[in-house]
Formats: sequence, C-alpha cells, structure tokens
Amino acid sequence: MRGGGEIADDEGSVADLGEFGVIAALRARMPPGPLTLVGIGDDAAVVGAPSGSVVAAVDQLIEGRHFRRDWSAAYDVGVKAAARSLADIAAMGAVNTALLVALAAPGTLPARWATDLADGLAAEAARAGAGIVGGDTARADLVILSVTALGDLATPPVLRSGARPGDLVAVAGELGRSAAGLALLQAGTAVPVAAVAALVTAHQRPAPPYDAGPEAALLGATAMIDVSDGLLADLGHVAAASGVLVDVQSSRLAVGSALRAAAASLPASSGTEAADSATPMALEWVLTGGEDHALVATFPPGTPLPARWRVIGEVREGAGVTVDGARHKGPAGWRHFP
Amino acid sequence: MRGGGEIADDEGSVADLGEFGVIAALRARMPPGPLTLVGIGDDAAVVGAPSGSVVAAVDQLIEGRHFRRDWSAAYDVGVKAAARSLADIAAMGAVNTALLVALAAPGTLPARWATDLADGLAAEAARAGAGIVGGDTARADLVILSVTALGDLATPPVLRSGARPGDLVAVAGELGRSAAGLALLQAGTAVPVAAVAALVTAHQRPAPPYDAGPEAALLGATAMIDVSDGLLADLGHVAAASGVLVDVQSSRLAVGSALRAAAASLPASSGTEAADSATPMALEWVLTGGEDHALVATFPPGTPLPARWRVIGEVREGAGVTVDGARHKGPAGWRHFP
Repeated sequence: MRGGGEIADDEGSVADLGEFGVIAALRARMPPGPLTLVGIGDDAAVVGAPSGSVVAAVDQLIEGRHFRRDWSAAYDVGVKAAARSLADIAAMGAVNTALLVALAAPGTLPARWATDLADGLAAEAARAGAGIVGGDTARADLVILSVTALGDLATPPVLRSGARPGDLVAVAGELGRSAAGLALLQAGTAVPVAAVAALVTAHQRPAPPYDAGPEAALLGATAMIDVSDGLLADLGHVAAASGVLVDVQSSRLAVGSALRAAAASLPASSGTEAADSATPMALEWVLTGGEDHALVATFPPGTPLPARWRVIGEVREGAGVTVDGARHKGPAGWRHFP
Repeated sequence: MRGGGEIADDEGSVADLGEFGVIAALRARMPPGPLTLVGIGDDAAVVGAPSGSVVAAVDQLIEGRHFRRDWSAAYDVGVKAAARSLADIAAMGAVNTALLVALAAPGTLPARWATDLADGLAAEAARAGAGIVGGDTARADLVILSVTALGDLATPPVLRSGARPGDLVAVAGELGRSAAGLALLQAGTAVPVAAVAALVTAHQRPAPPYDAGPEAALLGATAMIDVSDGLLADLGHVAAASGVLVDVQSSRLAVGSALRAAAASLPASSGTEAADSATPMALEWVLTGGEDHALVATFPPGTPLPARWRVIGEVREGAGVTVDGARHKGPAGWRHFP
C-alpha cells in the first residue's frame, strides 16, 4: 500500500488512499488503552506489564475461510478478529492490555470497509480493556487479518494441563450460537425471525466474556481454554494436556429456545451430519460449534462458583472426552466453511 | 489446515500433513528463549517482562511483494520475516524476548518449505536472543507471514521524536547491500562473482545488529529507527517526529567495494532511476535502499561512540532530510518489487 495518497474521506479504495493514508485513517480509529505507554507511530509500542510478565497470542482471520464479506459487515469482521485473540488471553486468566493488527487486503478494497473494520477492532478491544498499539498493512488478493493480543496476569497462568480427577467442569459464555447462526446463513433463508436473528449476530460478532477469565483464575481454576474449535474438541485439548478424562453431562447443557427454534427451521441435513431431529441438531451445535469463544474451566470440587459459571460436567481418571459417559459420535470440532 | 495427518517426514505438502501436523512440525523447530515462561501449546504464551513493560511490533512478509520463492530459499524467508520485526524492537533500544508467527500458506506448499522456513525463523530469533512462543497457521493462496516481536527495556524507550539540533547522526549495520543484491537478482545475471554474491545474500538474509539497539539506548541516543524503507526515508520519519532537519554527509557514507563492483556490473538503467554512472548507483543504494535493517540513531554532540556506530551526519534546525545540505533528487525510499 505504498504511496502518498491523501486521506480525504472514506470514499475510494485503499489503493486510492495509499499505504500511509490507510495507516493514518486506521490509526485515527485505534485508541490507546490504560496500559499503553507508547502507542502506534514509532518502530514499536510499549505496553505496561505490571506483573513482570506478558501473555501473548496470535490468531488469523482469513476471508473465505473464517468470514465472507457478503455475510459479515466489516465492523463485524473486526469484532471477530479481535475476539479470537482477546479470548485466548482471557483463557490464561489474564487481563487484556493490547492488540497489534496486521492487515493484508486487496488494493480494490473500499477504504470505508477498512475503516469500519478498524472501528470493530477498536470497539472489541475497548470492551476487553485493551488498546490497539501496533499495526502493519500490506496488499494481498484477499483480506487477511493477523491479530496479536497481549495481557497481564494477577495470578499464575491457568494452563490446559492442570485438570485433576474430581474437578468440576464449568463454562462461562455462550455455546453453539455461532454455529447455529452460520447454519442459518448457509441455508440461505430470508430475513430470519427475531428469535433466531440473534444467532446470526452471534456468528457475525462473538462476545466472549473476557472478565470471566481472570475471575476463574482468582477462583482457583485448575485448567482453562476458550471454545474456539468446539466444546468437545477444546475439552479434548484439556483432557490430553492434563492426562484426564472429561465427561460432559448433556442434561446440564442449556440448549436455549433460540437454538431449538433455529434447528426446527432448518432441513435436518443442514448444519451437522449427525442430526436427525431438531433437538439433537441444537445439542450438536452446543457440543461441537466453535467460535462463540466461551471459556470452559475446571475447578476443584466444591468451589463456589458465581452464577455465570455453569457446571456442565466433571473430570475423571482416564483419557479423552465423553458425553454422559459415552464417546460422542461425529466430529468433535468445527470446520469453518467447507 | 485442519485435519489429522501424521507427521511422518518432510515429504509431501502442508495439506498432506494437516493443520495439527504442520503445527507439530513447526513447533518442534521453535525453541523457547531465556524469558519464555509458557511457550507454544497453550491458549497463549507467557514471557518475562522484567522491566514491567513490554515492547511490541508486528510486520508482514508477503510472497510476491517482499520475497519470491524462486529468489529466496524458505530458510532465508524465515530469517527475513524474523529480522523485520526483531529490528523494530532493537530500534526502541530494547532486547528481543519473543516472536509470535502467523503463517498463511497454500495447501500445496511443500512441507519441507514450511519446516525450512521455521528453521530460518528460529535461527534469527535465537541470534537476537528471542524464543518463538506462539503461532497460528491457516490456508491462503500465497505465503503470508505476520511476525510479532516482543522485547524488554533496560532504559526508557528511544523514540523517533527525540532528535535535537546539534545531535550526531550515526548508523550501525549495513546500508544499500540488500538493494544491490535485489538489483543483481532483477538483472538476472548468472552466478555472480564472490565479491557481489554476498550482496545477494544480504538481500535474501538480512543481519540487523540487534544488540546495537540497547547499546545506543545506554549511550544516550535521543532518537532511533531501523532502516527498513531506506536511509533517507527513515531519517525523514525521525525528522518529522522530532521537528528537525537531518543532514547526511555523503563523504561519510562508506560505499564499499562490493557495492561499487555490483554497480559497475549492471547496466546504468538497472536498480535506480537516477544512476548515470557506477558510483552514483552505489551511493543511491546506500541512501535509499531498504531492508538491510541497519539502526540509525541520533546522539548528543560529543557522545563517544563505539566503532560500529559510524557518524554520517548531524541534526539541524529545520525540517526534512538533506544530503550535503541539498534535497535529494529521486525517491527517498524503497519500492520492493514493482
């Protein structure tokens, strides 16, 4: 995006704006956070790390694979790109402090799309308490976002490897709603009724409960992960890292009315291979749908949990993940777009 | 790159290996660093930040724009991708502590290419004292690397904005060698003689003097930047941020024999528009060639500098950048590939 274009307004393409124009337009939308010591504009940023360590994760969001420009507004893509990385920091028990955003995009991308994207990134960063402190822009044939999140710990980090037999398994945040929203979009139905429209929004714009991460750490969580690949797949990572079996009790999974309504509105073949009636399809979304970025954690037995942490199972001796004591049939995880 | 492929060896494509196979193969090549507290394998990494703050920067390296697979081996692409971000940290006066690497690549990419890339990333990270602590892989139609570097400061950060009239301007590291190497590659000459072959290597595999960054900070540098866009362009950023004029004295720029030999071997129209004889072309590379990632800094007058910091000019009242007191004709910076 090299070039000397003027930053006139949001009309035109990013190529019209030029590299420095794009950077300036984006920078104006990227606010610092409370721990931003040096923000965008120098060789690097400086961010406070009061604990003496920094938590860091990177995730990519790629057009055609993780989002479609005809299904998601630019603002929503920004929210989703930020949320993926911010949730990883929360899943360590850390508070988010900063994001760095690398954007590769076609020169034909409307400048307005890029600035809306920046607004979405900034809004979600602010919701998590983070500033946007760095970035890079380049050209590519499709939109590729790479977002690095930084965070700070008030406790030791909560790893995937600390779950012990007898621990409770509890979840904070939504399950299955993004998958249901994607199934609705894929089915190509007309404007959905209000009850299920929220699921489409959940797919377009996830809302992870970031502050539940540090909360879990303070409550003594023994292991934690964010549900990005699907509840069973991500619990599988915890089980493998901890050398335990995780059993999920399906009766404790709240399958909400919106999920049931969405499942009922779709042909049985949509959304999941294993579905043969509306309720199993909705349960399947809850068990295997990714991208809601709920946090799932294990806690020592008897830990008193705030209401938003819903107990859904327990840790046992063994290996792998079971649902009501049995292996789950079908894929455990999430396949984005085919 | 989702899938359950086995990690047999380096044969086959990344699609054959599958997402988790690729991740495992890359992870095995990504060593932790001395400050890596939690490395690759959890939701996020934890890296020591002894100073209570963290320095962070992100840069992208894109196939066809910043490198060509027929001109650079995968190992060299890894070195270059790492060097771009590591140099940004050094230019703040910080010590590098960690890299996070996001890789998007075609499924048809040879797995060996990906593992060689990882070896190059790891080698350059190690040269800078950093561990590789996080990553993400995804598919795209071309190879796109996004590298985030983290660092720690023993001093206040050295910004672009601190240069004052009377300051010395000094450089550590190479200038113009990457540009000369690219010009040789673009001219398509046969195997170059040994004297100029090193320039091709300099283009393929930059070697920034990372430890000169913290050294400059301890010496009292008032401003610093790494030469990624070209000496004049990057000094222009310092001049603008500091509200000063920077004058470069061409007699103090060491135009080495390899650069002169390379310039003499090329037709006058290659490499730069302004060249009309061998020596001006070589000087033009030094003034405007990017990607060597030398560090250029300003120091209070009279600062005793170690030998590797070569004084090349001074800071004056005014604005912009001059060479021997006059504005430079032609582009100040670097245009990658046309």
